[in-house]
Amino acid sequence: MTIADRWLLPDGMEELLPPRAYTLEALRRKLLDLLAAWGYDLVIPPSAEYLESLLTGVGKDLDLQTFKVTDQSSGRLMGVSADVTPQVARIDAHSLSCEGEGIARLCYCHPVLRTRADNPLSSRSPIQLGAELFGHAGLPSDLEILSLMLATLEAAELDQIHLDLGHVNIYRTLINQAQIDEQEAEAIFAALQDKRFADLDTLLQAYVECAQVRAHLTALAHLHGDMRVLEQAKRDLQGAPESVQAALVQLEQIAHWIQASYPQVTLYFDLAELRGFNYHTGIMFAAYVPQWGQAIAKGGRYDETGKVFGRARPATGFSVDLKLLVALQELQHPQTHQRKHLGVLAPVQAYTDAQLMHKIRALRAQGERVWVDLAGEGTKAHPACDRQWVQNAQGEWVISPL
Amino acid sequence: MTIADRWLLPDGMEELLPPRAYTLEALRRKLLDLLAAWGYDLVIPPSAEYLESLLTGVGKDLDLQTFKVTDQSSGRLMGVSADVTPQVARIDAHSLSCEGEGIARLCYCHPVLRTRADNPLSSRSPIQLGAELFGHAGLPSDLEILSLMLATLEAAELDQIHLDLGHVNIYRTLINQAQIDEQEAEAIFAALQDKRFADLDTLLQAYVECAQVRAHLTALAHLHGDMRVLEQAKRDLQGAPESVQAALVQLEQIAHWIQASYPQVTLYFDLAELRGFNYHTGIMFAAYVPQWGQAIAKGGRYDETGKVFGRARPATGFSVDLKLLVALQELQHPQTHQRKHLGVLAPVQAYTDAQLMHKIRALRAQGERVWVDLAGEGTKAHPACDRQWVQNAQGEWVISPL
Repeated sequence: MTIADRWLLPDGMEELLPPRAYTLEALRRKLLDLLAAWGYDLVIPPSAEYLESLLTGVGKDLDLQTFKVTDQSSGRLMGVSADVTPQVARIDAHSLSCEGEGIARLCYCHPVLRTRADNPLSSRSPIQLGAELFGHAGLPSDLEILSLMLATLEAAELDQIHLDLGHVNIYRTLINQAQIDEQEAEAIFAALQDKRFADLDTLLQAYVECAQVRAHLTALAHLHGDMRVLEQAKRDLQGAPESVQAALVQLEQIAHWIQASYPQVTLYFDLAELRGFNYHTGIMFAAYVPQWGQAIAKGGRYDETGKVFGRARPATGFSVDLKLLVALQELQHPQTHQRKHLGVLAPVQAYTDAQLMHKIRALRAQGERVWVDLAGEGTKAHPACDRQWVQNAQGEWVISPL
Repeated sequence: MTIADRWLLPDGMEELLPPRAYTLEALRRKLLDLLAAWGYDLVIPPSAEYLESLLTGVGKDLDLQTFKVTDQSSGRLMGVSADVTPQVARIDAHSLSCEGEGIARLCYCHPVLRTRADNPLSSRSPIQLGAELFGHAGLPSDLEILSLMLATLEAAELDQIHLDLGHVNIYRTLINQAQIDEQEAEAIFAALQDKRFADLDTLLQAYVECAQVRAHLTALAHLHGDMRVLEQAKRDLQGAPESVQAALVQLEQIAHWIQASYPQVTLYFDLAELRGFNYHTGIMFAAYVPQWGQAIAKGGRYDETGKVFGRARPATGFSVDLKLLVALQELQHPQTHQRKHLGVLAPVQAYTDAQLMHKIRALRAQGERVWVDLAGEGTKAHPACDRQWVQNAQGEWVISPL
C-alpha cells in the first residue's frame, strides 16, 4: 500500500472541500426552508435498516444498488440506505400511522450510498433531498409535487429546465390487454425501453393476437415530443381502455398547469418512458438541463409502497442530489459561487487577555468570523481576513482594516 | 416475514420524526454557524472510503466498529465511515496540502454508522459534528479546541457540564521508562484502565525493576479528582522525566483558562485516563452531564494521524453526536422544544386559481408555511394552521384568522 493509494477516493465517492462545501450547506438550508414553507415536515431516517424494510416492493434495481451488511446484534441483514424514499414510506406507514388517515407531507435530506451509479456520470454517494406526499390520490397532489420540484430547481438557481412527463398506466393498461405471459412481456418491455422498433414489431407479431393492441403498442414507441404528442396520442390510441384515456387527460391537465405556472420550463412527453415501471403507478417526471446528460430531479406517483408495512396509501414524491445541483449551479453561474465569507484576525493574546476574548465572543455572536492567529503567521496566512485587532496607545483592543 | 418485522428498526439505528427532526436541523445550523464564526471551514467527506484510508493508524476499536463492504468497481474493501475525524485528517494531509504548511481549521457534520455502539446506551447511527485544527502544536490550539467544544455545548443549551481532563503523555512516559515488553505493558494498561489496584500492584512487582517507576505508576492509578489532583501529582510524580512535568504544567494552564472563561463548568482530572491511548498524543478531554452516563463530547490531540497520508501534522479536535445533544436538550428543557411552526391553510383552488397561487408564492417566499388543503379536510386536519385563505364578497382571496 503506497501513500498515494491511501488518499485515493473510490469512483463516485466525492468529497466537498471549502468553499464548495459551504455552497452546498447554504443550498441545503434554502431548500429545506422551501419545503417547510410548502408544509412539508422534516424526517431524519437512519442510514441503515433491515433489508426487508428497505427493499420490499421497490424493484431489483435498488436491491442491486444497496450495500448489504450483517447486523452484529441481531444476525439479520441490513442495507445501507441507497434511496430515502422507501424509508419515508415506512415512516408514513408505521411511525406516523397514529396521526390518522389524513394527508402527510414529509421531506428529508440525507446522504445515501450506492454499490454502483445510476450511470457512469452519476455519484455513488449523493446527498438526497426530497419530498413525499401521502394520503391523496388525485390531480392536485400530482400538481403539488411537480410544482414543488420545479420550485426546488428554481431556488437552486438552475435555468433552462426541460421537464419530461410520462404516465405508467398507458403502457401498463395496453400490455395487460395483450394477455401474454411474463417472459413475453419482459421482451416487449425491453424492446420498447431501448426503442428497438424492428425488434418490437417482430415481438408484437409473435406474441400479441389482437391487432388493435399491437397497433397501440407500436404507436406508443413513437409517441414522444412536445405538447402535440398528446393530440397525436388521442388519435393513435383511440379505442384503448378508459384508463389510457384518463392518463392522457391527466397529462394534458398537468401540462397546462406547468405552462401557466412555470412558463420558462420546456415540456417533453414520452409515453413509452418506463423508468421505475415496477414502482410507479401514475405520472412520472424528470427534469433535465442542457449541461448534464442525465436527469437532475425525478419523481412520480407510487401508490403501493406502504402496503408491505401494513398501510397502503396513495403516494407521490420527488428527489434531487444536492451534490449534483451544486456542481450544476457552478456550471451555470461560475462567478457567483466563489464568494468568501470575510472576517477579522485576532492575535494569540486572545487566550490570555480576557478583555480581548470578551470582544471576540461578542463579534462571533453577531455571526462574524474571527480567526485567532495561533502561530503568529500574520494576515498573509489568513487571506479571508479583511480586518484585524490591534492594541491602541491606551492599551485597548480595536479593529483596524487591512 | 411479518409486517411487524418489516417496520422494526435495528438497535441503535434511530429515526427522528417531526417536530424533533426540525429541532435537530435548527441545532445543526446553529452549531455550524458557530464553528464558522470561529474560523472553521466546512468539509463534506464521502460516507464510504477505502478501508486503508479510514483505518490506518486509528486503532483496533474503530476497525471493529466499521462496516466493511466490497467496492464493485475496484474490487477493494471499503469502510462505511464510523468516525469522520480520520477522513478530515486525510483531507488536511492530501486534498488541502496545496494550501501550504499553515494552520487549517476544518469542521463537519455527517451521519456515521457503527457495527456496535461505544456502549449499550449509545447510538450506532450518530450524526457526528466536530472541528479539527491542524498545523499547530502548542497550548493555544489546545485551548481553542477545548473552548470551542464548551461553546458548542453552551450553544446547544446544555447546563451542568462536567469536563474530564487527562494527558496521555504522563502514562506514556512512565511506561516507556519501565522498559518492559509489549505484552507486559498491555497487562498493566488493562489493570490501570479498569482501576484494578491489587492486580496492578502484582503486575508492577513482577515486571518493573525500578522502584521509582513502580511508585509513579501506582500513584497514577489514584490521581483523579478536582484541581487538587494536580498539586498531588507534582508531589507523587517528583523525579519523573521532564515530559511528565510538562504535561502537568499544561493541564494546569488549561484548567486556569477554563476556570476563567467557563466558570460554570466543573473540572475533573484523571491522569490514568487512557481512552484512545493509541491515537492521542497530548491532552484528552470529555464532557459529561448528570442526565447521561456517558461522554456527550470528546476530543484531544492526535499529532500523528496524517503521517500515513504523507503529511504528519500536529492535530487536535473534538466531536459530538447531534442526536444525543437533541435528546439531552429535551431532557434538560422539556417545555421549550415543543414549539410548532404555525402557518396558513389554502383551499385546493390554489391549483386552478392563478391569483391565489400568486399570493401563496409570495407568502412562502417570506418563510411562512402554507398548506394546500388537497382533500378538503379543513382546518381540523391541519392543526399547525392558525389562519386560512377565504374568498371575500368581492371574490378576492384574503387571510382570515382561525
